[in-house]
Amino acid sequence: MKTHTAYMTFNTVQRREFVRITSDVQEVVNEAQVQEGMALVSAMHITAGVWVNDDEPGIQADALEWLDKLAPPSWKTPQNSVAAELLPEGGDYRHHRLGEDNGDAHLKNMLVHHQVIVPITGGKLDLGPWQEVFYAEFDGRRPKRLVIKVMGE
Amino acid sequence: MKTHTAYMTFNTVQRREFVRITSDVQEVVNEAQVQEGMALVSAMHITAGVWVNDDEPGIQADALEWLDKLAPPSWKTPQNSVAAELLPEGGDYRHHRLGEDNGDAHLKNMLVHHQVIVPITGGKLDLGPWQEVFYAEFDGRRPKRLVIKVMGE
Amino acid sequence: MKTHTAYMTFNTVQRREFVRITSDVQEVVNEAQVQEGMALVSAMHITAGVWVNDDEPGIQADALEWLDKLAPPSWKTPQNSVAAELLPEGGDYRHHRLGEDNGDAHLKNMLVHHQVIVPITGGKLDLGPWQEVFYAEFDGRRPKRLVIKVMGE
Repeated sequence: MKTHTAYMTFNTVQRREFVRITSDVQEVVNEAQVQEGMALVSAMHITAGVWVNDDEPGIQADALEWLDKLAPPSWKTPQNSVAAELLPEGGDYRHHRLGEDNGDAHLKNMLVHHQVIVPITGGKLDLGPWQEVFYAEFDGRRPKRLVIKVMGE
Repeated sequence: MKTHTAYMTFNTVQRREFVRITSDVQEVVNEAQVQEGMALVSAMHITAGVWVNDDEPGIQADALEWLDKLAPPSWKTPQNSVAAELLPEGGDYRHHRLGEDNGDAHLKNMLVHHQVIVPITGGKLDLGPWQEVFYAEFDGRRPKRLVIKVMGE
Repeated sequence: MKTHTAYMTFNTVQRREFVRITSDVQEVVNEAQVQEGMALVSAMHITAGVWVNDDEPGIQADALEWLDKLAPPSWKTPQNSVAAELLPEGGDYRHHRLGEDNGDAHLKNMLVHHQVIVPITGGKLDLGPWQEVFYAEFDGRRPKRLVIKVMGE
């Protein structure tokens, strides 16, 4: 059995960004020289996620607008009355008492999930035709890490 | 270490369906002859999910009604004012500019998550008493694939 | 390749609780004597989840308030009009016809996800600085199980 571990660091320009990393994950699998196995792709921060979906800008814009309604930031005006009601009672996150302003990003981390496992078959990521792996940043503009762990043979 | 890979294809009658696949996953584990390990069960499409829950029709009907409020389709009338507000501004998904009508299914894919890992102990799926594995289709009526990757010994 | 399986049983005092289990998972990794690999941490019930996030009480209170809006219990008054509209039509879950009152917990299980995989590097859980593993109970006060499966070498 072989294992191989690699880390990526993101420092996004925008506070929120979807960064496509499919080829980076494939490269780590190549380094691992694993033909059959699994690659775990996992954010090491609690205000980010990993999402497998289509690389279509409309989907990403839809997803971000929607995530901002479901898990609304308190640093901008709620988009509508649903977003306003999904903010905590009193209008701000308890987490912000400590000086943070990223309470919404912790909830987005839960919605998106912070990790995926990509199967490896014949040395390749065994993804469907439109599946791309994205690092989903919800509180960026500072260095954030992700771990890729490959296991197989 | 052993690995084994199998694929399933679904072509659901309904646009949205929960299809129980626990015994199919067990069969793939049997073929793999793995006694101790893990089985990854992962949708290869970006408008479907995999959910582990009870095989109780009430739960599934509850879940679908609720998912249609949280991630509302634009091809039917929103169920209530929350669903209407959770649609994108302007009432339709940006993703639909390309001729699609499944923008909601991409968001349901995120909510449900597209994969689970089932532990294998003594050659059996190590699930709790009510845990069943479901393929959750949100844009069916066409062939859609799922991969099962077993790894262990 | 080594595998090792352990089970934990929770019997929470409150109906809903976040229980930190990071050191329990590390202990199972120690028992497994695995230096490089993965630890699957998976709830065996369908009304609980596993969440990796910060051990900060404000975040947990924010998360529970928010989960009660998104997936509202029918055993207490909805917190606001969004929560009321996210209850099923008619105000109660179909699942409750069978005498249960935990329909909301099945939906929270979906939102939180019932499992995580923690990478193991150099014998240690390879987590980011603020990442802690929590068992997230949504229908406790009775014995509930979780499985930890370690695989690696």
